[in-house]
Amino acid sequence: MTTPQSRSRMPADDRRRQLVGIGLRMLTERPIQELSIDQVAAAAGISRGLLFHYFPNKRAFYVAVVRAAARRMLRECEPDPEAPPRRQLEQMLTGYLGFLERRRDPYVALFRGTAGGADYVREIYEETRDAFTRRALHALGLDAPTPLVVLAVRAWFCFVEDAALSWTVERPVERDALVAVLVSSLDALVTAAEAGTTPQGTAPQRVTPSAPR
Amino acid sequence: MTTPQSRSRMPADDRRRQLVGIGLRMLTERPIQELSIDQVAAAAGISRGLLFHYFPNKRAFYVAVVRAAARRMLRECEPDPEAPPRRQLEQMLTGYLGFLERRRDPYVALFRGTAGGADYVREIYEETRDAFTRRALHALGLDAPTPLVVLAVRAWFCFVEDAALSWTVERPVERDALVAVLVSSLDALVTAAEAGTTPQGTAPQRVTPSAPR
Repeated sequence: MTTPQSRSRMPADDRRRQLVGIGLRMLTERPIQELSIDQVAAAAGISRGLLFHYFPNKRAFYVAVVRAAARRMLRECEPDPEAPPRRQLEQMLTGYLGFLERRRDPYVALFRGTAGGADYVREIYEETRDAFTRRALHALGLDAPTPLVVLAVRAWFCFVEDAALSWTVERPVERDALVAVLVSSLDALVTAAEAGTTPQGTAPQRVTPSAPR
Repeated sequence: MTTPQSRSRMPADDRRRQLVGIGLRMLTERPIQELSIDQVAAAAGISRGLLFHYFPNKRAFYVAVVRAAARRMLRECEPDPEAPPRRQLEQMLTGYLGFLERRRDPYVALFRGTAGGADYVREIYEETRDAFTRRALHALGLDAPTPLVVLAVRAWFCFVEDAALSWTVERPVERDALVAVLVSSLDALVTAAEAGTTPQGTAPQRVTPSAPR
C-alpha cells in the first residue's frame, strides 16, 4: 500500500496510468457504465476529487479506460513487420484469438453489450477496427485498394470477430485451423471485391450461376 | 379515425397488430427504449390501461415490436424456393440491401445501438440471423454442414451486415455488383471452412504461404 507521501509524489502520468489500470481490471467484472468512480479512487488510495484532477470528468475517465482496452487488444495482435505477408496475418489473427480467449466477457460487454451503443465506445471500436483493417491491407501489400476492397476488408473484421467469439465457446477446430480459414477467407474476399466491378465476379463458384437477367 | 364504438369492437388480434404497427412506425423516429407506451396508446385512441390488456407489460410490447421488425426484414429477403441456388442467394441479399436502404437508421438504432445490448433484442437478433443463415445453407444445398461451416456462415452474416451498412452510405458500386461480391464471398468462405480441417486450406491464396512452423 502506498503512504500518503508516496501518493502525493506520484507523477501525473503514472497516476493516470494507475487509475486507468484499475479501471481496466474492474472492467473484467462489470460493464463500463457501472464502473464506479468512487471505487476506482478508493482502490488507488486517493479521493474522488483528486481523480477528477487527472480526468476532467467521468466520461473522460471512461474514454481513457476504453482506449487502453483497445490499445491492449491491438498490441496483442501486432504482427512482425519483417515477417512474410501470410505469416503477418496469421500472427494478427492468432493474437486476436488469444486475446478473446482470455478476455471474451469484457470484450463482449464493452463492444457488443449496451455500452457498445455509446458514442465514445462506438468511436473507439471503429478506430480499432480501422487499425486492424490497415494492418491486414498492409500485410496483403494493398497500398491503393479500391473503395470496395476497403469496405470488404473492414467487413471481414466483423466476420473474424463473430467467428472468433463463436469459436471461443464452441471450439469446433483447433486455433491454427481457424486462423487458416480466416486467412483464406480474406484472400477470397479481396479477390471477390477486386472482381466486384464485373457483374458475376471471378471467384470460384460453388453454386450454379443463374440465367442472365 | 376510429370511433369509440369501432375501437371497442376491434378483435384482440387486430388490436395487437395495430399497436405493434404503431410501435414499428415510432421505431423509425426514436430508439426502442424511448418508445412511450402512453404515446402508442394515444395514437391507437385507447387508454394506457387497455394497451396493457393486450400486452402484459412494457417489455412484452417491446418484444412484440422488435419481433415484428425482424419478421419484416426476413419477409423482404425471402427467396423463391423454386429458384436456382445462386438466384436464391441473390434474392436474399438484394432484399436485405433494399431493406437497409429504406430502414438503415432504425436497423442501426435497434441492433447496433444501446438497445442492441438488451437481452431480448440480442435474442431476437440472433434468431433472425439464424433464419438467414439456415436459408443460405439451404440455398447452398448444405443439409449436413460441419460445425465450422455453420460457424462461418453465421459469421458471414456479420460480414454481409457490415458491408451492407457501409454500402448504403458509401455506394462504391451498384447494388447488383455488391450482391455478386457477397455471393462469391459465401462460396469462398464455405470452401475455406470445409477445407478448414487441413492446416492450409485449399482456397486460392493471394499471399505467399509462410514457412512451416
